[in-house]
Amino acid sequence: MATMKVHGAVYSTASQRVFACLYEKELKFEFVPIDMSTGAHKKEPFISLNPFGQLPAFEDGDLKLFESRAINLHVAHAYADKGNQLIYQDRKKMAIALTWMQVEAHQFDPVASNLGWELAFKPIFGMTTDTAVVEEKEAKLGQVLDVYEARLGQSKYLGGDNFTLADLNHLPSIQLLMGTQVKKLFDSRPHVSAWCADILARPAWLKVVAMQANN
Amino acid sequence: MATMKVHGAVYSTASQRVFACLYEKELKFEFVPIDMSTGAHKKEPFISLNPFGQLPAFEDGDLKLFESRAINLHVAHAYADKGNQLIYQDRKKMAIALTWMQVEAHQFDPVASNLGWELAFKPIFGMTTDTAVVEEKEAKLGQVLDVYEARLGQSKYLGGDNFTLADLNHLPSIQLLMGTQVKKLFDSRPHVSAWCADILARPAWLKVVAMQANN
Repeated sequence: MATMKVHGAVYSTASQRVFACLYEKELKFEFVPIDMSTGAHKKEPFISLNPFGQLPAFEDGDLKLFESRAINLHVAHAYADKGNQLIYQDRKKMAIALTWMQVEAHQFDPVASNLGWELAFKPIFGMTTDTAVVEEKEAKLGQVLDVYEARLGQSKYLGGDNFTLADLNHLPSIQLLMGTQVKKLFDSRPHVSAWCADILARPAWLKVVAMQANN
Repeated sequence: MATMKVHGAVYSTASQRVFACLYEKELKFEFVPIDMSTGAHKKEPFISLNPFGQLPAFEDGDLKLFESRAINLHVAHAYADKGNQLIYQDRKKMAIALTWMQVEAHQFDPVASNLGWELAFKPIFGMTTDTAVVEEKEAKLGQVLDVYEARLGQSKYLGGDNFTLADLNHLPSIQLLMGTQVKKLFDSRPHVSAWCADILARPAWLKVVAMQANN
């Protein structure tokens, strides 16, 4: 097996999503840091790996991929016999897990990314948080988490009884938002709060957090 | 095989995405119209099918799904032996097609949906188009289509040499935008223009267009 390569950055949430998946699958990979401060993600050689100039990009032998959720689906299917299962082999169970993967991508992520930018990244860059945007997005995130609260009262994980990519793909944004005022939205919903505590404590995710601490 | 049901609306682009997939697969389905003008998508019984209150929802026997792209992936896999192939069985080819499905969802759709709302739906509802938003989103769409132009110079379809869900999932928004000033962005790029003409002329898609005409 050729060494896999992740071209990314430790603070990029999309890169973290792929790191988490590879650690869950106990796969060796080479991390190729891309320095966004110099615009390396908008230049060659990176732009040949992802023409949209966004982190991460991924190489698995001669297969070159981008878009973190596509990379994770590939890894989970291609290395189904390694590490922890992140998908279902059963077609109906997988269809439901895929639905909740889409929920993460289309309901949760747009709101969570916006809040992460306003509350976590803007202060780092010395920019001013837009409180009107925060208020609007917090209300939307609350509505999404109300649905999650009901769902997690019925099944242990979002995609079903097992931890899958439907949960894993949330980790980078949840970790980021837990360090902001948005934490209260997760903490105030018992099933959501227990789910967050569970998935944030997974050994694979702690390795991703350690990558940031060691940077 | 139990009859499949699509709970949706003929003018809902996400519903159209699922209709197109089912027609490509030559599968019989029951269309259950949801009247958004009365808020039926925010009430029972629909809300039990999709707790986010968005069209469409889908039933395949006892399997209940929502999120159009998840429904299409399920249908393409579960009925691989019916109608036209919309996925690859080859793992590497499928990984690349999945990447371009994510590109549609994360690069194309957010911009295209915004333009569709400003230029197609707002005029219908007697609302005023925000020209500043249109200008910004047209510039972004142009950048996305520049990448598509390069990609479609290398392979016949976005996901590879065959028509797949990576192409199909674009159809509703492209059809909508072709009736607006945004048409110029597609027409001015030769490979993109040829690709649009090809996929918009597929018999399955023409059946979806006919559903609107007959409504």
